[in-house]
Amino acid sequence: MSNDYVVTANDNLADELSRVGERDSVVRAWVTRHDDEKIINAFKTAPDGLLSGWTIGVKDVIDTFDLPTERGSPIYKHHQPVSDAACVAMAREAGAVVTGKTVTTEFALFTPNMTTNPHDSNRTPGGSSSGSAAAVADRQVRAAFGTQTVGSVIRPAAFCGVVGFKPSRRLLPLAGVATLSHTFDTIGWFTKDVADTATMFQAMTGSRLPEKDANHKVGRYLSHQSDSVAPETLGVIDDSCAALEANGVEIVEVEPLPHLESVFEAANTILHYDIVRVFAWERTHHLHLISDLVRKMFVNASNIGYDDYLQAQDLLFTARLAHQEFMAANQLDALLTPSAPGEAPPIKTTGDSVFNRVWTSLGVPAIHLPVRLGPTGLPVGIQLTGRHWCDKELLATAAHVESNIIES
Amino acid sequence: MSNDYVVTANDNLADELSRVGERDSVVRAWVTRHDDEKIINAFKTAPDGLLSGWTIGVKDVIDTFDLPTERGSPIYKHHQPVSDAACVAMAREAGAVVTGKTVTTEFALFTPNMTTNPHDSNRTPGGSSSGSAAAVADRQVRAAFGTQTVGSVIRPAAFCGVVGFKPSRRLLPLAGVATLSHTFDTIGWFTKDVADTATMFQAMTGSRLPEKDANHKVGRYLSHQSDSVAPETLGVIDDSCAALEANGVEIVEVEPLPHLESVFEAANTILHYDIVRVFAWERTHHLHLISDLVRKMFVNASNIGYDDYLQAQDLLFTARLAHQEFMAANQLDALLTPSAPGEAPPIKTTGDSVFNRVWTSLGVPAIHLPVRLGPTGLPVGIQLTGRHWCDKELLATAAHVESNIIES
Repeated sequence: MSNDYVVTANDNLADELSRVGERDSVVRAWVTRHDDEKIINAFKTAPDGLLSGWTIGVKDVIDTFDLPTERGSPIYKHHQPVSDAACVAMAREAGAVVTGKTVTTEFALFTPNMTTNPHDSNRTPGGSSSGSAAAVADRQVRAAFGTQTVGSVIRPAAFCGVVGFKPSRRLLPLAGVATLSHTFDTIGWFTKDVADTATMFQAMTGSRLPEKDANHKVGRYLSHQSDSVAPETLGVIDDSCAALEANGVEIVEVEPLPHLESVFEAANTILHYDIVRVFAWERTHHLHLISDLVRKMFVNASNIGYDDYLQAQDLLFTARLAHQEFMAANQLDALLTPSAPGEAPPIKTTGDSVFNRVWTSLGVPAIHLPVRLGPTGLPVGIQLTGRHWCDKELLATAAHVESNIIES
Repeated sequence: MSNDYVVTANDNLADELSRVGERDSVVRAWVTRHDDEKIINAFKTAPDGLLSGWTIGVKDVIDTFDLPTERGSPIYKHHQPVSDAACVAMAREAGAVVTGKTVTTEFALFTPNMTTNPHDSNRTPGGSSSGSAAAVADRQVRAAFGTQTVGSVIRPAAFCGVVGFKPSRRLLPLAGVATLSHTFDTIGWFTKDVADTATMFQAMTGSRLPEKDANHKVGRYLSHQSDSVAPETLGVIDDSCAALEANGVEIVEVEPLPHLESVFEAANTILHYDIVRVFAWERTHHLHLISDLVRKMFVNASNIGYDDYLQAQDLLFTARLAHQEFMAANQLDALLTPSAPGEAPPIKTTGDSVFNRVWTSLGVPAIHLPVRLGPTGLPVGIQLTGRHWCDKELLATAAHVESNIIES
């Protein structure tokens, strides 16, 4: 946590509240919010801790005892949970003040919702953690929780130009978080920089980052989807690699990894098999309140049998082991890879998760770092993906990368 | 599903309702129950499906839209969820009628609750899925859902003398199920026999069991905790093995497996690290409503650091791989092993989970089969544990074992 922020916490709070006042009608990051007076009072009475002086937004699939949790669906309109999700309770215990619930797509899937990209209201903020990424990018809140099942943290972080972090799968509890896929769901968050993400990580796990950075070896990885990489993304990746090499980081080129080739499709099979079961209640009681896009997913899912599912799980497990061995054998701390094809597309979609699904499926930690604005003025950055359970090491690598590449 | 049950479903329902009337004041398996008229009406209007004619009980940590979910804790007294957990919605979709919520220990941990063992009201029914096991054993309901994080399905199944099944971890969604440990929680259920468990499995996964049984090779495994095995349990294991051998099943003796030696302790480390985070809300808002036993767990847990946790996860992962290789290399379908030390102990504890934790931690499927009554008139049986994702194969093996060992 940067000390100057604590010292000037009240000033920052005033700035954030006025940003919301000015910008909320355009950015539309919030489903529900406490009124300013309540936030100011909460700020005064919050416990002392690692997150003292922090405001946080909470994606509206994550329970809060004092604000409804609607999951982006009319089925849960005005639904008020009785308790906080575990991650929210931990953040409050560490001193953070929850200011409101941020917009999610329906059930954290693909249907766009009302939030716009803070850099251009005709572009998508990405999804499904749309409001969380946009609110942090627009400086309406210090940090925000999101969830990632396919690409729902990294992609909106990329489109909005903030740091987005998805820890190793199942490191953090999903208690009080609405399920999308019990196989893939992961809690993550958005902050302005890596230092803040490291502080949040400490609040959640009890662990500080290593004091000294180890030597860093990073693989440049364009993946099997390299055809989708826009020139501005390629430019940022190449410039980042050059800046890192100039600062003593070893960069190696990594060709598309054969063990990852079928992961995308296998993950899709598992996701579909999962959601038709996860949403058994919503399907059987409220089908008319579910969007066409999601209903179509249910129909597609009904073609996926148990044996397909087992085959996909088997493929994924083999890929996880192979990837673990590959990273260890090559002594790689991280892969530097696209977060998204390019700048945020127009607002009628939430963009393409083609560069996210594989890492979520492997369960490895991933972080997005914003680098600069692209040709149309929207943010472009890079993704770093690490080894499973090596979250601390990935954050240390990210801090090193950030200090060497971010243009001021 | 046995056809005669459907034909006589109404008779069975009448029997179950009168059992509850006669026995509820002694067995105390239910937290809340629909009244008989409501159950009878639901029976008439339930959709046609695999579970038509079935009544089911639902452990009170699993959400139901029409009955409160209190989690065995005064913190959640009268808490009414807005929707069904995924497993409950799937069961209702398949035609089952939920009759009520069954007693759980506090948060599905170790503190005994009010349910008694149907065979002897001075003995424990086991925990934490106490009411689910007791209600099925006492023929008050056809089947019941439970959850297992350490030994909360297999152990009460053993003490009450019913079939208890814990599928491979994360095969079934936990959506709508209160978290205890996000690492270990698994949905399971209780039925009178393996055929019913196979039908429930089909309702949850869409998959039938293989028509023909393969050859079976089963390892007799007393584990590192063999000193805890009571003579009556050893007798049941030996008689089961003899009966199987006489019926063409190959039985091999498996010595305590070195790769499983440290799993127990590692799992305990992870469980503690998890629960102090999972219960952040309850700790920070309602500490005075939490039992001394659970508060003590929170205190112990605070000594476990992130590095201890990672080391435990690493050990567990290595053990999972080693166990997978061991089972494959020896072409073992299952291990035949104790479910519990012996008959149900007195009611002041929920009994010892010493023979359960390792299998839950590995994530492999496990099933308890009741065999006969022990020296003091309480049930004794055996546990079969399989390979991860080989649930169907384990159930087929269990059906074969059941048909050869159960004494009529």
